[in-house]
Amino acid sequence: MRNVFSVNKLRRIAIVGVGLLGGSIGLAIRSAGSAAKRIGIGRRMSSLEKAAAFDAVDEITVDVAEGVGDAELVVVCTPIGVIRSMFERMAPCLPKGCVVTDVASTKAEVVRLAEAIFPKHVRFVGSHPMAGSEKTSVEFARADLFQNAACIVTPTRRSDPATVRSLRVFWEELGGHVHLLSPARHDRVLARVSHLPHAVAAALVLLADAGDGTRYAGPGFGDATRIASGDPDLWRDVFASNRKAVLRALDSLGSELGRFRRILETGDDRALTAWLARAKAKRDAWIAKRYAKKEIEP
Amino acid sequence: MRNVFSVNKLRRIAIVGVGLLGGSIGLAIRSAGSAAKRIGIGRRMSSLEKAAAFDAVDEITVDVAEGVGDAELVVVCTPIGVIRSMFERMAPCLPKGCVVTDVASTKAEVVRLAEAIFPKHVRFVGSHPMAGSEKTSVEFARADLFQNAACIVTPTRRSDPATVRSLRVFWEELGGHVHLLSPARHDRVLARVSHLPHAVAAALVLLADAGDGTRYAGPGFGDATRIASGDPDLWRDVFASNRKAVLRALDSLGSELGRFRRILETGDDRALTAWLARAKAKRDAWIAKRYAKKEIEP
Repeated sequence: MRNVFSVNKLRRIAIVGVGLLGGSIGLAIRSAGSAAKRIGIGRRMSSLEKAAAFDAVDEITVDVAEGVGDAELVVVCTPIGVIRSMFERMAPCLPKGCVVTDVASTKAEVVRLAEAIFPKHVRFVGSHPMAGSEKTSVEFARADLFQNAACIVTPTRRSDPATVRSLRVFWEELGGHVHLLSPARHDRVLARVSHLPHAVAAALVLLADAGDGTRYAGPGFGDATRIASGDPDLWRDVFASNRKAVLRALDSLGSELGRFRRILETGDDRALTAWLARAKAKRDAWIAKRYAKKEIEP
Repeated sequence: MRNVFSVNKLRRIAIVGVGLLGGSIGLAIRSAGSAAKRIGIGRRMSSLEKAAAFDAVDEITVDVAEGVGDAELVVVCTPIGVIRSMFERMAPCLPKGCVVTDVASTKAEVVRLAEAIFPKHVRFVGSHPMAGSEKTSVEFARADLFQNAACIVTPTRRSDPATVRSLRVFWEELGGHVHLLSPARHDRVLARVSHLPHAVAAALVLLADAGDGTRYAGPGFGDATRIASGDPDLWRDVFASNRKAVLRALDSLGSELGRFRRILETGDDRALTAWLARAKAKRDAWIAKRYAKKEIEP
């Protein structure tokens, strides 16, 4: 059986795409005590130089073959829209036994591509660390970005168990709480807790703006719509690669808001309080759990 | 014509209900340089004592008549659900020429009640400072809560112009940016930028929880749903007192999400990017305006 690795024993880790997530992975690897050489791979030398200046990586290159050639671990942090071509460029250059993962926000399509494109001697399993923000560039990278973050690892029946365990150890060493979900289940869950909220935030902004309402909007509106400031190209790819689950989540939201509408129409104030109280209780319970871990409210 | 007042010239200001908003008004009055005696009026001595301990008020009483008897300005910060009975208790005790306002989150119903209940010699105009949070008690009160906040003043054709100007000066002295809106227009705008976002946040929490999804939720979900942790009783009253406008806002949200759904279904990625980019541009523009004023992101 193959060995489960620890980040402290790795000598070369390649990070493909060094933005907020890639950069934070670089910083977190070092802060976890690893002496591994961190290779930053990207399309533009200028971004890579910035990443190096922030000490997120040690070596930088725009040459994928050179970058991944001797790596024991490769973490692909490129946007979903270009991940296929990146996989194809990496595939012939990956050393035997190399562990590869990615951090894309949708998994079924990405994992299917990876399993189709990478050769058998490459140990690929998908990941999705639930961290980040509407900011995407490396200057927002933080060594503690993954502290107490849910990190989802998405094995399939083709996945090597030692690789799954290695990635569990990797994300835990970076501070995360690891959950295993199938790629399809991941996408269904994320449609509800991430993609739908994004679409709703965008819709709320468009609505508010239409009535010149943003002039009167307060901090609650700011929080509720923060994610709508995310990168439109990145999010188009998220939605486009998780269409079905997002459509289903939209249906569920329609049903839940339909319930709220009927309560409001009938003037049943007791049911209205109960509906609001149930939501508050669920959210407060979630916050309490996170708060217990992080000591700051997310 | 009656005089426009400045908070610095007032000798007695009564604050009815000293929670987050009432307490912050007390603190802000003092920090604006006013030497006025601040009288805290409430239902329970224990809460009033806490407010006094936080220096939000100078004198405290559960006796409404005693509290408002000599006041030049009365700010009513009680929850909407009990505001009618508070108006009725205050009405016979208010001194002649006294300026009265409130801070309720909905205005048409509250202003109608006030104009029906208060005697002619009382100068009432409604207010709604867009500040606060899901926390409602006095220990979260802050002298700078109204700094750069939109403060809506809602005159009707029965309002005395000098009173409207006085309240404009009052909220400006507390740091706010004052807008004048009719009560009905206020309620329509707020349905979109505050009440609808609250209902949506609650629905998102209930949906996420149903699929055990909160285990995997990240900071974006936390922001998007923060307002769902607000007090259910307060929010029931907000919704119940602004039913029609909230139902209309729900319809508009349905249309906007319907647009998103059709774009997603047809797989028109260019339209999807454009929709997301429009929302981002609108929100970023709003944030830039707030940021220019506050130097912190809301």
